[in-house]
Amino acid sequence: MGSTQHTDVVVIGAGLAGLTAARQLVAEGKSIAVLEARDRVGGRLLNHDLGDGQVTEIGGQFAGPTQDHILALAEEVGVATYRAAVPGETVYVHDGKAKRYSGHTPPDLFALPDMGIALARIAKEAAKVDPAAPWRSPHARELDSMTYETWLRKAEITGDAVDMFSLFLNSAYGGEARDASALFSLWYVATFGDETHPGTMERGTGTTGGAQDSRFVGGSQLVAQRLAEELDGRVHLSAPVRRISQDSTGVTVVSDAGDWRAGQVIVAVPPVLAARIVWDPLLPPQQDQLFQRLPFGTLMKCVSVYDKPFWREDGLSGMGLLRGGSPIREMFDNTPPDGGPGVLMGFLGGREWRKWAHRPATERRGAVLRSFAQVVGDRAFDTVDYVEQDWTAEQWTQGGPTSVAAPGVLSDFGPWMGLPFGRVHWAGAEFSPYWNGFMDGAVRSGKHAATEVLGRD
Amino acid sequence: MGSTQHTDVVVIGAGLAGLTAARQLVAEGKSIAVLEARDRVGGRLLNHDLGDGQVTEIGGQFAGPTQDHILALAEEVGVATYRAAVPGETVYVHDGKAKRYSGHTPPDLFALPDMGIALARIAKEAAKVDPAAPWRSPHARELDSMTYETWLRKAEITGDAVDMFSLFLNSAYGGEARDASALFSLWYVATFGDETHPGTMERGTGTTGGAQDSRFVGGSQLVAQRLAEELDGRVHLSAPVRRISQDSTGVTVVSDAGDWRAGQVIVAVPPVLAARIVWDPLLPPQQDQLFQRLPFGTLMKCVSVYDKPFWREDGLSGMGLLRGGSPIREMFDNTPPDGGPGVLMGFLGGREWRKWAHRPATERRGAVLRSFAQVVGDRAFDTVDYVEQDWTAEQWTQGGPTSVAAPGVLSDFGPWMGLPFGRVHWAGAEFSPYWNGFMDGAVRSGKHAATEVLGRD
Repeated sequence: MGSTQHTDVVVIGAGLAGLTAARQLVAEGKSIAVLEARDRVGGRLLNHDLGDGQVTEIGGQFAGPTQDHILALAEEVGVATYRAAVPGETVYVHDGKAKRYSGHTPPDLFALPDMGIALARIAKEAAKVDPAAPWRSPHARELDSMTYETWLRKAEITGDAVDMFSLFLNSAYGGEARDASALFSLWYVATFGDETHPGTMERGTGTTGGAQDSRFVGGSQLVAQRLAEELDGRVHLSAPVRRISQDSTGVTVVSDAGDWRAGQVIVAVPPVLAARIVWDPLLPPQQDQLFQRLPFGTLMKCVSVYDKPFWREDGLSGMGLLRGGSPIREMFDNTPPDGGPGVLMGFLGGREWRKWAHRPATERRGAVLRSFAQVVGDRAFDTVDYVEQDWTAEQWTQGGPTSVAAPGVLSDFGPWMGLPFGRVHWAGAEFSPYWNGFMDGAVRSGKHAATEVLGRD
Repeated sequence: MGSTQHTDVVVIGAGLAGLTAARQLVAEGKSIAVLEARDRVGGRLLNHDLGDGQVTEIGGQFAGPTQDHILALAEEVGVATYRAAVPGETVYVHDGKAKRYSGHTPPDLFALPDMGIALARIAKEAAKVDPAAPWRSPHARELDSMTYETWLRKAEITGDAVDMFSLFLNSAYGGEARDASALFSLWYVATFGDETHPGTMERGTGTTGGAQDSRFVGGSQLVAQRLAEELDGRVHLSAPVRRISQDSTGVTVVSDAGDWRAGQVIVAVPPVLAARIVWDPLLPPQQDQLFQRLPFGTLMKCVSVYDKPFWREDGLSGMGLLRGGSPIREMFDNTPPDGGPGVLMGFLGGREWRKWAHRPATERRGAVLRSFAQVVGDRAFDTVDYVEQDWTAEQWTQGGPTSVAAPGVLSDFGPWMGLPFGRVHWAGAEFSPYWNGFMDGAVRSGKHAATEVLGRD
């Protein structure tokens, strides 16, 4: 391994959070090393090569209004964005019956009235939650004593409407309404905004004008790749960190690619993985307990490739919402910006992951393509390529898309979330008061951690 | 580190589960090695030396009827038991007012009627839960969609009664009613029994005739120490396991005390710690996700030592239940069997841990002694020794007393709990259908794992 290398700051994790922090520290004249466990940068962002210079994403991919941090960063590193939505109708599939519709509202006469009531309640309660300190909200104690499912059902909301919400949660949490506390879920809505635009459910779930507004030309991972290029040799790949020891004079970081000694360290990996590092001294028990209580969701992305986006000729956007037995519950047209090849992408998350992830790959592929066919017709079976990205099977993520807190966690352990531990600072999508779990949250957290480190000098 | 050592089976963890498994394997003629991270055996059992050959426990300590596995084991290794309860009255403290009472029922006219209703509901629902497969219970889906707090409050149970239950949960879970799913909590009650005695709340919470019936002469850790002596050199201390690699011919276990190669491995450490080992190949994602969702409770044991058990002269049992602002909510006379020195032991768990664990030790000590004084009078301040054991601060436990599942976990991930992973088998208090989280469950799980290993030959 050779001798210990010395830098001002070691950043652990070359996802957007770590790379953003590193960039800011270099701009301020700090010597840094970024240690990345994988043989690539980007963390939960991952491009899939379609050939002929085209890519599609099998990790995080969308951005939208009020996500100014990721949007500005992309512009700075020369990655353009484009409107994600494709003209055409969306398809709503319920118990095997498909209906085409336009606009935001799926045509379900049974679920809609309850959804309206629930959305109004969500808006009202989420507005009371402080994104930076949800545990201080007026009804924090009560909201954190129950699951989101319990809270949704309280106002006589039917299972139909709860299931409509779970469509969104399956992708957003990789989970179910019962996995999360009501406080966490209302807080999550409150994070769908910024300092001047209070978070709203519509902004979180929307396509045009919402969190699924835009995509990145060349794929979202390109932003991370450009950042790594700028960092010019300071990013060390295949360097999983095994141990972090700190004392009164500095921090020693032991990785498979050698040891580093630094004045301060930014840990920019998900909470689940941060807790698996050997800590000397141990993490404060409150922080270890918090990390024990931030499990990842369960999420797989399923991508099917076609010669061309044939559904567009039929007046379809490629978007679909599916309820009742489909492994895919939400799907999108993921075709590259210049129109080919055609790509359909579906989220297989939450309970569907739990049903399907352990089954034989061919069986799952068949079920996924049948889901796609319910939305765009039988040509969905004429796939030229089919790819699955199961984020739970990734050693250096262990789930997706983000960490979800059960009842009690935010109240009892939330205040410990971003507290520096001696010379160690925290970053990552989970450590942001806005767009938590999103790219924008990751970039925000990286800037915050870098500022914290610079303030310590 | 030297060359790799070879045995038939490697057992990881020298708590009761691992030692029991090892004993059974040795009896069947297997060569084994037990690798223990700590410099001692016993896991969550820990004796504290009082001098003059006396000990008291600062870890698990009680046993009772239907816990035949731990009781038989203790007898086999020559550790006697004695009745834990001390004659005398118990003290119930509510908002600073102390009342003495006899029998099982705290004298609280406001909480009692609701508690009666809740206990009847618990008995009725717990009886429907299969200890071996709670996810198959008739109302599993619904019960696992809500917290235990939500479920308790459903029948108009007041906060007073919920708080009475939380007294028990603070010690039993190191948690609160909102931390656990209703299904998990009702299942937990169903585990307070054995194959011929269905679990009941009374058996779980009771002293004489219940789970707090008996203690071990010489301290509970002595059982583990005797087992380790029997294993005669096969237990390797200070040997934390860092990596487990398996292939078609065997398993390689990498520890700080060297490498072992075995045909099969029993992992007998808590789920939180099992997930922190480096796995090659990775754990099945379902099992990793399950372990991500089994956080430990938060629990500290506080022990105060006196010249003699002075409260006995006042007709007090030393037992107390405290509600409303006390860091200690449940306490016991923990005096050694021959009557001296006097020892009071209090559980500081759940929300009280979360309030108190990070405060200065002297401030906490003062508050704990004030709790004790509310029960036994001001002589509680005349302590000759005061000891705290914070299980969350133990590197090789990371919490206590056991792992608690939030809503959704048992339903979606429970079936993966004890499934062997190739040549790897699971044991530990969390892996038992009876007395889960107790010593008896640990012993049961060790026997089960050994039998599973022997069946593979």
